Amino acid sequence: MNNFLHNKHIEELFLEVQKQIATGLQNQDGKEKFLSDFWTREEGGGGESMVISKGNVFEKGGVNFSSVFGNVPEFLVSDKEHSVIGATKKPNQFYATGVSLVIHPFSPLVPIVHMNIRYFEMDNGVWWFGGGIDLTPIYVDKNDAKNFHKTLKNTCDKHDSSFYPKFKKWADDYFFISHRNETRGIGGIFFDKLNTESTGKTKEELLAFVIDIAKTFLPSYLPIVSKNKNLEFSETQKNWQMLRRGRYVEFNLVYDKGTKFGLETNGRIESILMSLPLHASWEYNFKVDENSKEQQTQQLLKKEIEWI
Amino acid sequence: MNNFLHNKHIEELFLEVQKQIATGLQNQDGKEKFLSDFWTREEGGGGESMVISKGNVFEKGGVNFSSVFGNVPEFLVSDKEHSVIGATKKPNQFYATGVSLVIHPFSPLVPIVHMNIRYFEMDNGVWWFGGGIDLTPIYVDKNDAKNFHKTLKNTCDKHDSSFYPKFKKWADDYFFISHRNETRGIGGIFFDKLNTESTGKTKEELLAFVIDIAKTFLPSYLPIVSKNKNLEFSETQKNWQMLRRGRYVEFNLVYDKGTKFGLETNGRIESILMSLPLHASWEYNFKVDENSKEQQTQQLLKKEIEWI
Repeated sequence: MNNFLHNKHIEELFLEVQKQIATGLQNQDGKEKFLSDFWTREEGGGGESMVISKGNVFEKGGVNFSSVFGNVPEFLVSDKEHSVIGATKKPNQFYATGVSLVIHPFSPLVPIVHMNIRYFEMDNGVWWFGGGIDLTPIYVDKNDAKNFHKTLKNTCDKHDSSFYPKFKKWADDYFFISHRNETRGIGGIFFDKLNTESTGKTKEELLAFVIDIAKTFLPSYLPIVSKNKNLEFSETQKNWQMLRRGRYVEFNLVYDKGTKFGLETNGRIESILMSLPLHASWEYNFKVDENSKEQQTQQLLKKEIEWI
Repeated sequence: MNNFLHNKHIEELFLEVQKQIATGLQNQDGKEKFLSDFWTREEGGGGESMVISKGNVFEKGGVNFSSVFGNVPEFLVSDKEHSVIGATKKPNQFYATGVSLVIHPFSPLVPIVHMNIRYFEMDNGVWWFGGGIDLTPIYVDKNDAKNFHKTLKNTCDKHDSSFYPKFKKWADDYFFISHRNETRGIGGIFFDKLNTESTGKTKEELLAFVIDIAKTFLPSYLPIVSKNKNLEFSETQKNWQMLRRGRYVEFNLVYDKGTKFGLETNGRIESILMSLPLHASWEYNFKVDENSKEQQTQQLLKKEIEWI
């Protein structure tokens, strides 16, 4: 085990955005603070999980930093996906660092949100960046959705005008619950395997892009929180939130690649499953009422909606 | 699409035990009845889901019968596991029928329970039976655990004295949440791919065995329900139940092969995910109190305990 792949520069920038985001969210919450747990991974590396619990606005949430390394797990070596980009020889060691957040607000009128940026490298010279931001409103507000996507698009456009359309479609395809035939929420952007071969950009340019995405998180999310956090809500709305959270759990445990990667590389379970809500529900054969707000949201959980 | 593999004899016996079990459970509940939903599967076959909801004792539960057929899905053809037993040629069509139940009681003093029997056949002549019963107490009572396992052992012993030890170990290994390094509950029995090659028994003998297992479900479970269903419980106990249910969700969505098979063969989602509880919780980094009843249970969530 060694850490020769460690990229201190990237890690410093990642740790900085982690702190900025936690501070921005706790200011919005006004009651609870994010508390840090530091952890190490037996096979190499560790991380810092910053967690908020039972705040005024945020019922459960975490902004996690991790930096892990070690032998490339078998499922990565054999996975065709991981060997296509610029690989010249079989990798032995990997290094991965990233910031990942999921926030579950208490109110059904404040959307669940997820953001992730990550850097991955192997000792055969292959490296890439990945990441994304996506929003899961319990009730979709088209104007909020438009502003959210616009904010993401503005940041993407500063780096490459092809990014937003490509990464918006990628999010639609990625944050999709196949067995329910519905998207997790209104999407956002998702990207993976960004390197010089796939984008024509240098490592520094791509690093600047993912840092910019992380810095776009607060301005994309806080206006929606701020507008809705003090509104009254009904028991029907709370119940609908519990069911939507159930779908969120389904996505994360059945499909999410970050969760899968964490579970299969012996990551820190409490940090990986931090993404699950405090409470969630599953009702047998639940049907939304005709012409209800819940039905309006359900009808918008599909791919290829142009929100802007 | 055709149904030439349909085995009416097996299906009649399976439907009969489904009704017996639902009747036994609803008598114990005393308030709600199991209601039937009939469904068909586009690619071939269908089923009958019998569901109880918000009863006196059972908060959510289903006893599902299904009989499905069609083209063998790619993941089965390529899966080495599915081609080892007596296969002489590549299969094209499959047929699967089974009864599957999961019951989530309201009280944390009444265990969650699961039972399944199934028959699988392909047009290359390969067939097998599978199934099992396992118990997930929120609080493990060693005496109840002993009686539960004894009841299963007695039934197994009538058919083959090697069955209980073998299938008890199989359940320990199968109902295991690797990422938590804990068993789902106190196990029970689990078996798969039982056919003449693997057991030396005829199809009729193995059918008699699985029917006997299904008929052992009520006598293995009802005494525990009956003894505990009216006991008072605390908020701490209810909270612990919510967290244990969270682990149940993790097992079913991450590891359970029946769930995976259902999702990948376009099964009826509401019947497959019927196994998920009405409400479940995830607390970040939850720790049981020293010397508490919760800790006692947690320490018993491991393999290779000889309950009898």
